[in-house]
Amino acid sequence: MSFSVSILATGSELLDGRVVDTNSNFVAGILAQRGLRLKRVLVVDDDREELLAGLRDLCSVSELVITSGGLGPTTDDLTREVVAEFCGVGLVECPRARKHVEEFYLKRARTLEPSNLKQALLPEGTTIIHNELGTAPGFIASTRDGRTVCSLSGVPREFKQMFLDTVAPIISEKSRDAKPIHRATFKTFGVPESVVGRAVAGCGLPYDMTVSYRAAFPEVHVVLKTTRSEGLVEASRRIESAVGSEVIFSRQAERDFFQEFQLLCEERHVTIATAESCTGGMIAECLTRTPGSSSVFIGGVVSYSNNVKEALLHVPQDVIALHGAVSAEVVCIMAREVRASMGAMYGVAVSGVAGPNGGSAEKPVGTFFIGVCGPNGSRELRCFYPGERATVRVYATYVALDLIRREVQALAIPDCYPIASRP
Amino acid sequence: MSFSVSILATGSELLDGRVVDTNSNFVAGILAQRGLRLKRVLVVDDDREELLAGLRDLCSVSELVITSGGLGPTTDDLTREVVAEFCGVGLVECPRARKHVEEFYLKRARTLEPSNLKQALLPEGTTIIHNELGTAPGFIASTRDGRTVCSLSGVPREFKQMFLDTVAPIISEKSRDAKPIHRATFKTFGVPESVVGRAVAGCGLPYDMTVSYRAAFPEVHVVLKTTRSEGLVEASRRIESAVGSEVIFSRQAERDFFQEFQLLCEERHVTIATAESCTGGMIAECLTRTPGSSSVFIGGVVSYSNNVKEALLHVPQDVIALHGAVSAEVVCIMAREVRASMGAMYGVAVSGVAGPNGGSAEKPVGTFFIGVCGPNGSRELRCFYPGERATVRVYATYVALDLIRREVQALAIPDCYPIASRP
Repeated sequence: MSFSVSILATGSELLDGRVVDTNSNFVAGILAQRGLRLKRVLVVDDDREELLAGLRDLCSVSELVITSGGLGPTTDDLTREVVAEFCGVGLVECPRARKHVEEFYLKRARTLEPSNLKQALLPEGTTIIHNELGTAPGFIASTRDGRTVCSLSGVPREFKQMFLDTVAPIISEKSRDAKPIHRATFKTFGVPESVVGRAVAGCGLPYDMTVSYRAAFPEVHVVLKTTRSEGLVEASRRIESAVGSEVIFSRQAERDFFQEFQLLCEERHVTIATAESCTGGMIAECLTRTPGSSSVFIGGVVSYSNNVKEALLHVPQDVIALHGAVSAEVVCIMAREVRASMGAMYGVAVSGVAGPNGGSAEKPVGTFFIGVCGPNGSRELRCFYPGERATVRVYATYVALDLIRREVQALAIPDCYPIASRP
Repeated sequence: MSFSVSILATGSELLDGRVVDTNSNFVAGILAQRGLRLKRVLVVDDDREELLAGLRDLCSVSELVITSGGLGPTTDDLTREVVAEFCGVGLVECPRARKHVEEFYLKRARTLEPSNLKQALLPEGTTIIHNELGTAPGFIASTRDGRTVCSLSGVPREFKQMFLDTVAPIISEKSRDAKPIHRATFKTFGVPESVVGRAVAGCGLPYDMTVSYRAAFPEVHVVLKTTRSEGLVEASRRIESAVGSEVIFSRQAERDFFQEFQLLCEERHVTIATAESCTGGMIAECLTRTPGSSSVFIGGVVSYSNNVKEALLHVPQDVIALHGAVSAEVVCIMAREVRASMGAMYGVAVSGVAGPNGGSAEKPVGTFFIGVCGPNGSRELRCFYPGERATVRVYATYVALDLIRREVQALAIPDCYPIASRP
């Protein structure tokens, strides 16, 4: 088995809902970069028995166990004594640790409490881990069966600094023989997870490559992992052709939908203006998240009331009266007018029923229309994606931008888009 | 020992750093409200042996184990079969689950894949947990030694809904003897956490009441907890007067800033139009999140480029040339014009430098101007809140709406607002 790392996090704040454990996520991300996997994360209370059971459990499956928290000066800080007990040694005062605690208080002109000196007691024979940002020093201990326990402060910024300074090099050293894991990421939009899963399952990947899926609404991500780099290109090619390269909007783990969209627009010198009704400004907000967005996004109108549709977007009153504000006819005019008034290459418009109220038999909650007007003319699309208000709005935002992406890249609309036929 | 709950979270995305486990935190918070504690949280990989070991471990210390994740249609979704194996039963197709999966797809006009029907297979003898928001139904199983295993979808919004609908009532029933905890919540905006903390610390609360703080950027929440209800009103009064009632925008744990804002506007028959530059539609998007927002929000203009400021908001070119697009003069005109053109009671405008580029010595990144125009005239405010792009945008959105709130409620602007004096 390859080198493996687990985390034991302790602290009542993690178990009563006050704090989310982000330390584990931080370690997981760094391990992943080095081709390693976090084996288990266990969160337990500040309790001697619980901590002992946790150490026993994690040391039975991992060569290195990182503890997070329990190094403070109060009575519920038990990590030092429990690790000592687990390793079969006593606690001794570490002169370097004592000096650190004393200097930390001196520097901040605070009074040193006797309880603070508890923090200078470390399990016998351990190596101190310096804590630049806080009082509590950490330490590296060895268990009787040769496992390594690294105990760090639970405060996120202290934990991260201590991890990077001291534990990360140990992991690098111990995992030198670990085969690095190569990965390829495919982020898709517009196809349900099950369809993506079936496509990938059917593309005959070698048995030593693993595929994982993640539904990051409304995206579905596929990650291919392997320890040998040779087959990666061929396997990626197979996944691309099975899933359909036109539903893959990104092959970069660290780039999101909107960043990719902006890059595409920058590359093709595309500019955009928006006219939004049910999405209420969400498309504009998403288009302006990424620095440099002003080279792509010109501006937008949020025409929530019909008066605004008439006054600012010149939608004739009788068109609204005849077809309704949620209609192909209205989004067509909205897109055309916002494009013209702002001088953008593309105008995109959305009108829909986000709910929970306002639905009808003909246009139930979840119905929305997207209009795109560009250099090659106009296109409207009726969609139906029932769900909560927030879900409908996010989905409509994605469809609107995905339609522009498909226009720009001259791609067809996929069959599996949730397009409702007209009643 | 009292009734105890543990969580087994599964998913490779939790162990490779892609996703932070927030489901455990959610459950922990709800248990805490009922005077209960989460016993352990264990995160393991999508692996049969790991899942079995996890179930064994957690069922040995807790009466109820909640699993999160692994109910999807793909090959790495193993929770159904592992729970069945652990309980010593087989998997059988549940007609209700099948109907749910089929209807979910039918409703969205999508093709049902054979792999989706895997989601209708549940351990024999279990009770289905309805998943209103996703395809995967959950279930409640009993182990051979009488423990309860509740398996929920790992997707946070599905997990939360399923937990509240089905698991929370089971927990209430099983923990009837636990002492209820009474709490009072105060949500503030505009004052730093340290100032709020010092104010509360000085107001002399009884020793058996605990206060906790949460910085939920840009809000600071104060929660007062006690097991006896008598002193709660008096203690709440003290906190209110120490913190300052005008910085408290909500006393309801479950209501957010934008819901409170909408309620206030509905009550006072206030209508709003927005003109946004650096926030890029965020204010409009926030104002339209809550159902019924059309009674308050009329519409908005996102005037990202100066041309749009001139064409749609009639900001004269020479005002922009003289004072810059980020100026009190420009937001004043933007607010006035958007109010007039949309016929709203209040027009609110934002222009600023969200960064990371575009800052200058006179107007560094983090500088923004808010203009409010209403029945009592106009007001402009220059603010400075340096930080990342997303931080500046969110902060500006809050200040914009908080200024309207203060106008409507005739409250002064607090001293501790981050207002920059003009250079």
